[in-house]
Amino acid sequence: MLSIDAYRDIFLSHLKQEVIVRDPENLYQPIDYILNLGGKRLRPVLTLMTADLFGRKHQEAMKAAMAIEIFHNFSLVHDDIMDDAPLRRGKQTVHEKWDLNTGILSGDAMLIVAYQFFEHYPAETFKELAKLFSKTAIEVCEGQQYDVDFEARDDVQIDQYLKMITFKTAVLVGAAMKMGAIVAKASPEDANAIYDFGLNLGIAFQLMDDYLDCFGDPETFGKQLGGDIIENKKTFLYLKTLENLPSAQAMQLHHLFSITPEDTSDKIQAVKELMVSSGAAQQTQKEIESYTHKALQILEGMTIEASKKAILKDFAIALMNREI
Amino acid sequence: MLSIDAYRDIFLSHLKQEVIVRDPENLYQPIDYILNLGGKRLRPVLTLMTADLFGRKHQEAMKAAMAIEIFHNFSLVHDDIMDDAPLRRGKQTVHEKWDLNTGILSGDAMLIVAYQFFEHYPAETFKELAKLFSKTAIEVCEGQQYDVDFEARDDVQIDQYLKMITFKTAVLVGAAMKMGAIVAKASPEDANAIYDFGLNLGIAFQLMDDYLDCFGDPETFGKQLGGDIIENKKTFLYLKTLENLPSAQAMQLHHLFSITPEDTSDKIQAVKELMVSSGAAQQTQKEIESYTHKALQILEGMTIEASKKAILKDFAIALMNREI
Repeated sequence: MLSIDAYRDIFLSHLKQEVIVRDPENLYQPIDYILNLGGKRLRPVLTLMTADLFGRKHQEAMKAAMAIEIFHNFSLVHDDIMDDAPLRRGKQTVHEKWDLNTGILSGDAMLIVAYQFFEHYPAETFKELAKLFSKTAIEVCEGQQYDVDFEARDDVQIDQYLKMITFKTAVLVGAAMKMGAIVAKASPEDANAIYDFGLNLGIAFQLMDDYLDCFGDPETFGKQLGGDIIENKKTFLYLKTLENLPSAQAMQLHHLFSITPEDTSDKIQAVKELMVSSGAAQQTQKEIESYTHKALQILEGMTIEASKKAILKDFAIALMNREI
Repeated sequence: MLSIDAYRDIFLSHLKQEVIVRDPENLYQPIDYILNLGGKRLRPVLTLMTADLFGRKHQEAMKAAMAIEIFHNFSLVHDDIMDDAPLRRGKQTVHEKWDLNTGILSGDAMLIVAYQFFEHYPAETFKELAKLFSKTAIEVCEGQQYDVDFEARDDVQIDQYLKMITFKTAVLVGAAMKMGAIVAKASPEDANAIYDFGLNLGIAFQLMDDYLDCFGDPETFGKQLGGDIIENKKTFLYLKTLENLPSAQAMQLHHLFSITPEDTSDKIQAVKELMVSSGAAQQTQKEIESYTHKALQILEGMTIEASKKAILKDFAIALMNREI
């Protein structure tokens, strides 16, 4: 097995070779644009890595990795429309650079193109991959719908929030790894175990995203700190704080999450203090550790070489300790 | 083989049994809504019919027929957003009844759900169906993109227009029939022939749609006559008229297609007169006949029972002579 960086390089050099743009250019140019906007490429890297993990050459998993990355970018294009987001990775979003219709239609095409990448596999493998892909894709849609629904609600429970991020984010991490396992013809037990490993890691990853958005190091964190607080996003941190606080302070937090002041620094400061004083910040860290631990336990129970386990373990711990 | 009406009834009673709505309801309710808005159900009927044509029970093609109908409705939901259409079959469009985000997300889910219906078939059949489906779906997206592109262009050629409607409409008719053939394990030659039959019929069907929009019988035509003229849509009829007219009259038509008067009756009348006097109206009828004839020639060359050929032939001729 190679390093994460090595898999990323291999994936990127393959991505460069894939010819996406053809006629009509207005449909395919935006797809090429979003695919080359950068990003960690975490999901396709996990697909390649998992194929190696189960003793198959990672090259064989390349088309599945492409499908996963294209699907991920499809969801970004359509989500950016729904969130009215002007920027993605510091560049214009597709519907900003082109227009709404281009964003919708190019996104649709990406979803279909993702399925087409599975056609490189024989029928049995194709069916297994496409079935997992459809199940995952529909869950991602459901997660996005829960996210939209929750914005209008004032009574979201923590377990509902966890289900939402599981669907919206974690299932795709699990599926990315399971696809590597399917291509490598791993046993169903191993394929399911690596799915669960990815799922738990994905939840930890999303919770860490929320945590870093508030408590990240301004030196290393790529985006504006406190962005979720400014936008009144009801993250795990927020919900946990609300749950912990006595009613007077809970009302204060409620109030802070109903205003949008021009100078946001006081608001951010006040919310962060409540997150810390209520114990929610620390509990969120514990929750991240707990999901990572669950992932590592699943890994422990698998019948793969110790040296390979060690690589995945290091990867999981690095994700938990990351600062960006 | 049964009558078109009988296949439609069978399809509709199956559609009623499919439970679409589940949690989150805001995602699935719009899918249920659009699927039950009515329509001719032409595509799924053709899938069922073709399975019978090649000696398989039409019930076996039901899941493929569902996939086709759901995909068709997906394209309606997203197209209605792009066209800013308030009504579909006399009822509110999804993005009007709910909102933009619901239209986008429910559409996405429909595309995925369509693929899931193929999972009922064994791996080899699944792959064949999904592959044809993806190819067709991407062509439909390309057709929609050409349609969008053409709106902003003043130099669309007739062959480009024909390619656009082939992709946007006809390939799905061809694919609907070929799926019935695939499920029925017809020979590749027969499957391709029935695809070509459907493709040519689909082009004739779309040209007929354009023709009836101008020259249909107001007593029987469901929609407002002259709608395409009011919206300055560059249909085959319009392009052919423009091609035929001497430059002075061509400029007049150009002018008529640049204005949007409050009282539309004079404009409609003037455009229709040019369509007739230029010979374009008659040429369009000839073109419809020609595509229908091409479809019938393909049918003639196929090695299926004469009685079955006769049913398809009647169907094709009825489509050509329809008034709605």
